[in-house]
Amino acid sequence: MPYAQYFNGQIFPNDADLLKTNDLGLLRGYGMFDYFRTYNGVPFRWDDYWTRFANSARSLHMAPPLTQDETADILADLYKRSGEAEVAFRFVLTGGYAADSVTVTQPNFLIRCEPLPKDNPTSLREGIKVLPYDYVRDLPEIKTTNYLHMILQAGEMKAQGAADLLFHKGGEISELTRSNVFLFKGDALITPDRNVLNGITRRAFLELAAPHFDVQVRPVLFDELINADECFTTSTTKWAVPIVQVGEHTIADGHPGKRTVFLRELFLKVVEEWGS
Amino acid sequence: MPYAQYFNGQIFPNDADLLKTNDLGLLRGYGMFDYFRTYNGVPFRWDDYWTRFANSARSLHMAPPLTQDETADILADLYKRSGEAEVAFRFVLTGGYAADSVTVTQPNFLIRCEPLPKDNPTSLREGIKVLPYDYVRDLPEIKTTNYLHMILQAGEMKAQGAADLLFHKGGEISELTRSNVFLFKGDALITPDRNVLNGITRRAFLELAAPHFDVQVRPVLFDELINADECFTTSTTKWAVPIVQVGEHTIADGHPGKRTVFLRELFLKVVEEWGS
Repeated sequence: MPYAQYFNGQIFPNDADLLKTNDLGLLRGYGMFDYFRTYNGVPFRWDDYWTRFANSARSLHMAPPLTQDETADILADLYKRSGEAEVAFRFVLTGGYAADSVTVTQPNFLIRCEPLPKDNPTSLREGIKVLPYDYVRDLPEIKTTNYLHMILQAGEMKAQGAADLLFHKGGEISELTRSNVFLFKGDALITPDRNVLNGITRRAFLELAAPHFDVQVRPVLFDELINADECFTTSTTKWAVPIVQVGEHTIADGHPGKRTVFLRELFLKVVEEWGS
Repeated sequence: MPYAQYFNGQIFPNDADLLKTNDLGLLRGYGMFDYFRTYNGVPFRWDDYWTRFANSARSLHMAPPLTQDETADILADLYKRSGEAEVAFRFVLTGGYAADSVTVTQPNFLIRCEPLPKDNPTSLREGIKVLPYDYVRDLPEIKTTNYLHMILQAGEMKAQGAADLLFHKGGEISELTRSNVFLFKGDALITPDRNVLNGITRRAFLELAAPHFDVQVRPVLFDELINADECFTTSTTKWAVPIVQVGEHTIADGHPGKRTVFLRELFLKVVEEWGS
């Protein structure tokens, strides 16, 4: 078994028939997750991801059933079994099995080791189109498993040649379905401060940008976005992908901006040297 | 195996390790369900439940992988295996297994045959307290698996001696976490028309009430509720449970109302004769 998963104390192949069907994550959407990757075989910003995961769990009145160190040992084991140079890890913590389909007793804790998604060099080089979507995530600060709208709109995105949705509500933007959003107006780098997931890659970019730009973390209007000089989105797997089209609105000249490319180069240097 | 479940073409014991962990219901909350019960061994209003289930599935761009007749045969099989006089059935349809944790290819279809929840005669006799909760369900007309708030608030409900949450938003009430809400003002029977699940038991009560009361299906204000003469909630398993307390507000004299009891008696007659 190359890619393997940890579930409640044991290791299984990733395609094992594993979960009983009265799990509260399945039946009631009572679950949260996290997702991160290795660089040079070392989990990127593991302390940050662990802290976020544990905080999200606590917000749902659950606790990870392992310590950070115990979990790190499992990651090392799963990484070794994969035989791959780089992998992704997906944590899932649900309310566990419930005889009455309501009451949390013992959470289920799953760690899947997965292949990295394929790079999309065209997105990086040419940028992506996103569709504005009137929505704000419920409990945005918690990484729950509720991604229904993303999947519901998959057909519409494909039909319109869009790579993702951009959530906005009451004239204010928040985030994409699985990634944060930034814009440049001149040398001001601006990203929303509310109704967003506290992205670890977002944090890394804010740190890298601080010495070079006027960083502003604050409410951001949809109108600011469509009048930006540059726009991009950050995530664990995407780094910084330029956004060049928002629905019918073209951002600036419709090409990736030079400040975005500059920041991505800084990030690239960090991950190339990660773990050394 | 007394209680058994159908999953993608086969029958398994209810506690089987069954589901692979890349199911989109588990990972992304992309799933919907339905739940109904037998009276005299015959599924109650099966055509209505099936129609609602199939409509909900279509709203999520999925289709039940079986016809209504094929499904009815499975229900009969599961009922027989249970050896019980009365059972409940839970349908769950998810986006299925996804290698990329995003793309729906082949939905997973699960039918669990379950014991009925225990009756709660105290609730019926004395009525229940509910907590007002500022929330409106996302896609309320679809019976998705998103019940996160219900479970999140379980501790608070317990602490306050409440049996459920009453959702309200902008001064308007919608529903409880898993059941519809009605109120009486004099001989007017009033229930919200929007932001609610189209409950089958709700429909049955509306039909039973029509010859006797002035039935009004329309937006309902929170203020109307707390000034009602009677209030009750309907669901598959609860029939009509009186609501006598909404947070700090006592409904009328704090006792179940006579019209509520009258309607419940009518419903009781229907289910006693069901299937004959």
